[in-house]
Amino acid sequence: MFKPSRSITTAMPSDLAISRAAARRPLEEVAADMGIGPHLLEPYGSAASKISLDAIDEFRDRPRAKYVVVTAITPTPLGSGKTTTAVGLGQGFRHIDKLGIVAIRQPSMGPTFGIKGGAAGGGYAQVVPMEALNLHLTGDTHAVTAAHNLLSAMIGNHIHKGNRLGFDPHEITWRRVLDVNDRELRTIITGLGGPDDGNPFQSGFDISAASEVMALLSLCTSLRDLRERMGRIVVGYNRGGEPVTAEMLKAAGAMTAILKDAIKPNLMQTVEQTPVLVHSGPFGNIATGNSSVVADLIGIHAGDYLITEAGFGADIGAEKFFNIKCRASGLAPDVAVIVATVRDLKTHSNKYRVVAGRPLPPEMLAENPDDVIAGAANLRRQIANIRRHGVTPVIAVNAFPTDYDSEHQAIMDVAAEEGVRAAISYHFTEGGRGAVELAEAVAEACAEPSSFHRLYPDELPLVDKIDVIAREMYGADGLDLSPLAARQLDKYERAGFGSLPVCIAKTHLSLSADPKIKGAPTGWRLPVREVRASIGAGFIYPICGDMRTMPGLSSAPAAERIDIDDNGEIVGLS
Amino acid sequence: MFKPSRSITTAMPSDLAISRAAARRPLEEVAADMGIGPHLLEPYGSAASKISLDAIDEFRDRPRAKYVVVTAITPTPLGSGKTTTAVGLGQGFRHIDKLGIVAIRQPSMGPTFGIKGGAAGGGYAQVVPMEALNLHLTGDTHAVTAAHNLLSAMIGNHIHKGNRLGFDPHEITWRRVLDVNDRELRTIITGLGGPDDGNPFQSGFDISAASEVMALLSLCTSLRDLRERMGRIVVGYNRGGEPVTAEMLKAAGAMTAILKDAIKPNLMQTVEQTPVLVHSGPFGNIATGNSSVVADLIGIHAGDYLITEAGFGADIGAEKFFNIKCRASGLAPDVAVIVATVRDLKTHSNKYRVVAGRPLPPEMLAENPDDVIAGAANLRRQIANIRRHGVTPVIAVNAFPTDYDSEHQAIMDVAAEEGVRAAISYHFTEGGRGAVELAEAVAEACAEPSSFHRLYPDELPLVDKIDVIAREMYGADGLDLSPLAARQLDKYERAGFGSLPVCIAKTHLSLSADPKIKGAPTGWRLPVREVRASIGAGFIYPICGDMRTMPGLSSAPAAERIDIDDNGEIVGLS
Repeated sequence: MFKPSRSITTAMPSDLAISRAAARRPLEEVAADMGIGPHLLEPYGSAASKISLDAIDEFRDRPRAKYVVVTAITPTPLGSGKTTTAVGLGQGFRHIDKLGIVAIRQPSMGPTFGIKGGAAGGGYAQVVPMEALNLHLTGDTHAVTAAHNLLSAMIGNHIHKGNRLGFDPHEITWRRVLDVNDRELRTIITGLGGPDDGNPFQSGFDISAASEVMALLSLCTSLRDLRERMGRIVVGYNRGGEPVTAEMLKAAGAMTAILKDAIKPNLMQTVEQTPVLVHSGPFGNIATGNSSVVADLIGIHAGDYLITEAGFGADIGAEKFFNIKCRASGLAPDVAVIVATVRDLKTHSNKYRVVAGRPLPPEMLAENPDDVIAGAANLRRQIANIRRHGVTPVIAVNAFPTDYDSEHQAIMDVAAEEGVRAAISYHFTEGGRGAVELAEAVAEACAEPSSFHRLYPDELPLVDKIDVIAREMYGADGLDLSPLAARQLDKYERAGFGSLPVCIAKTHLSLSADPKIKGAPTGWRLPVREVRASIGAGFIYPICGDMRTMPGLSSAPAAERIDIDDNGEIVGLS
Repeated sequence: MFKPSRSITTAMPSDLAISRAAARRPLEEVAADMGIGPHLLEPYGSAASKISLDAIDEFRDRPRAKYVVVTAITPTPLGSGKTTTAVGLGQGFRHIDKLGIVAIRQPSMGPTFGIKGGAAGGGYAQVVPMEALNLHLTGDTHAVTAAHNLLSAMIGNHIHKGNRLGFDPHEITWRRVLDVNDRELRTIITGLGGPDDGNPFQSGFDISAASEVMALLSLCTSLRDLRERMGRIVVGYNRGGEPVTAEMLKAAGAMTAILKDAIKPNLMQTVEQTPVLVHSGPFGNIATGNSSVVADLIGIHAGDYLITEAGFGADIGAEKFFNIKCRASGLAPDVAVIVATVRDLKTHSNKYRVVAGRPLPPEMLAENPDDVIAGAANLRRQIANIRRHGVTPVIAVNAFPTDYDSEHQAIMDVAAEEGVRAAISYHFTEGGRGAVELAEAVAEACAEPSSFHRLYPDELPLVDKIDVIAREMYGADGLDLSPLAARQLDKYERAGFGSLPVCIAKTHLSLSADPKIKGAPTGWRLPVREVRASIGAGFIYPICGDMRTMPGLSSAPAAERIDIDDNGEIVGLS
């Protein structure tokens, strides 16, 4: 009946206060630790520097870091602390005299002003300064927005000026994007006004993180590759049913010019002055939810360990990491850290209901290792999902001050049963010092041989790719394809897109397609409502459930609390 | 029958080629010339550095530069080369051993991909690197877009969540903005979809340069002042007819946080390595068309001459500079350079018609000093407009390779008749060396005492302010107010906005409200169709004619030619 011996249970300062109090090193020094010379570094303010892609060629013959992906069991709506754990692990390596480089996505600015108020890890495992990370950073997301909407404007203009390419107006799939939570932009009619104001279309805006341009930026391997992928973007179909691309619209060159600096990864640092690469921020459902390939291509030759984060649980984020991101990068991961929390496992016992924006049910905070054990099926499935790819799993128990030692031990017992290394990690309250056991477990696992392989070959038909993921990752009995989805799959195969990987858009709150079903359900089939294509980014994405691509604001959005103080410093973020 | 003796008539390299060939100095050295220490400078890539606003206080007791505004006679749709002349004049001062600092607006990215393909001066009088200036720069315009659209989202969210402030949905004046030429966004219906997707409204997007946030950024004097102006933004009216502000929506703090870095002016350099402050880019019709006050508050204590540009002809740009920008900054100009070209004056003879995007009429290129003299009335009026504010005018004849010496002399003769200093300037083809005579003329004029005063006192009623500008600047006989305009003026006076200056939105192609009428027309009245309010920026703007606030793309937009080459360099810009 004890709270965990190590977690500090007294009130901690806010994330913003911790961030502001952190002493930062000049980024040239952080870069120097990574072997990145000043000729490869462009400062963008004091918070971040861009790294030239010349580093990829320059570092090619340097030793290769161990490659670690941080994923999780199926989380609650409150999340499992994956980013915090990835950052904490990077800091932890410093305490065992190893250089851990963390590579994460850039947070979307829209949600910063919505519920979240900021995302940069948390507590004493943070990327700093958090206000720079959460606001603009070096403007990469703005560049994505600009490139995306230039293409939108060129489509409308093309049709307005005579429609030389013969667009079928009912088959325009390209929308617009903005990095703001604005529900009223989800469905709009454009082109009203008069004859000089274009043609009326039903359309809408997604948040910029959901842009195919963002997904493409995260998957390209060079500026030339970016240019070629940009040209392959399919924006709609002509009256003969053939794809119309950004290349055919002569938009791809200008879009690439807009992203010329955005393609360079951003170097920042943790509260403990260790390196962090922040780059690209694709959605985790309709895209990969993984940070950029180019950042990893640099980081893999710049330290002892490269730690990257994959969005959502291992069934989604890690699967996409293995089969989409690693396919693009050519890199092979050594270890996957599976983040698990006491509240996650308790939720999978099916005895509690966790709702975003509301406090946890009080009974969930009572000591109850049995409920943790009762929720272990999801963790076991996610371990199997990692092993299925030939990668070594390590469990990170992300400790919360409200946890009990007995509950932590319950997770450790499950890990032992599965023969998986595990460590309890206290990075949130203790920083890197609290993640030393985790870093040691990861280091041990990395020393073992790994045999990474993808889940399916390129030549497998699209429908079979979806089927193998549904069965082998989610535990489904098969697929329920809607007639629309079947027609679309057939269309993509005929158009020559059949060799692309699939990126399943599914709820992250369940292994199934129903967010209410916890644990590791069996005896169900995955419904595929429709199938869309991100040909430029390089994947086909089946939609399995309701996917919201433009968030709204809450009744009391974080924006109402954010301001500047008399010293010109930002307050209310976090 | 000679082409002008000094203009190089052989083909010149493209602006982009000149820009790329220019050797650049480290910006720390450029800043050091201005007395700006490294503690005030934040590099943003190699192209630009931001200057801390702490410089304003730190420099307060340093010697004051002479303050020169560059304006023009009423231009043709091809423009008179004001930016190029301002940049050339800055370069010219270097050749007489004086430090001339140029302060200009940041170009809008939308038009870069439309007709223009880039704006940064031109020829050998350019700001470099031009691709950085024209694409993102340090992201200030993106920040304006983000702050503006956050407010839009908060308005829709406020109504969706119960409309506590009692918005009258028919009286929402706040739209959305994007930095793209997209005619289909001019008039849209938002909030379609379903009950979770907000409420349907007719709305639209303006280009970001037309945002009130951009105007506000250009006129504020400090971060605190920015915060206060942000709170005063009126986004609509409640059912009682009272203004609803960004402060009442609790949006102003977050909007300010978004602009925390954008408020810092950007330091760049000319092809001759002299300093340029690039900051903010408000429209010239519905806003001031002037670069930022904070840039000038720094620049005025950082060199011998501070040269700033005011959009459009002297009746519009310089009038707004004197009565809106200088009112906000408290600075008093010494000299106004009026740019005049042979083609401008010929056009004012009413014998030629110049159309944007088409070549000049060939007969316009024949030697004809008489037509230049016949078009002098507009120049005389603009000279009077400058003198009416107690400022010394200097004529800059911006030489084109197609001009004849006799035509230049004709303009010089008009200047002499008016008792105004004048110089022929060859900066486009020769750089600063070609602007030495102009620099000397400006230096002489600055040595004379000036007696700057504004055109009207704050307490003059709004309608009388419009009337005095119409009569004394445009040469009108008075105003024709629409009933709507009269009602709106009355509403603003009652709401307590009567002491604000007015910012007239009128065609820049004529002194009158009709773009086809050239010269200096008399016997006409200024029609005022409606009157809008930018309370946060701090002005009331009467609409006199059709004002387009969202451009479209042409049949062959510049975007189709812009690309990256095999070295990753941008091509096709310019």
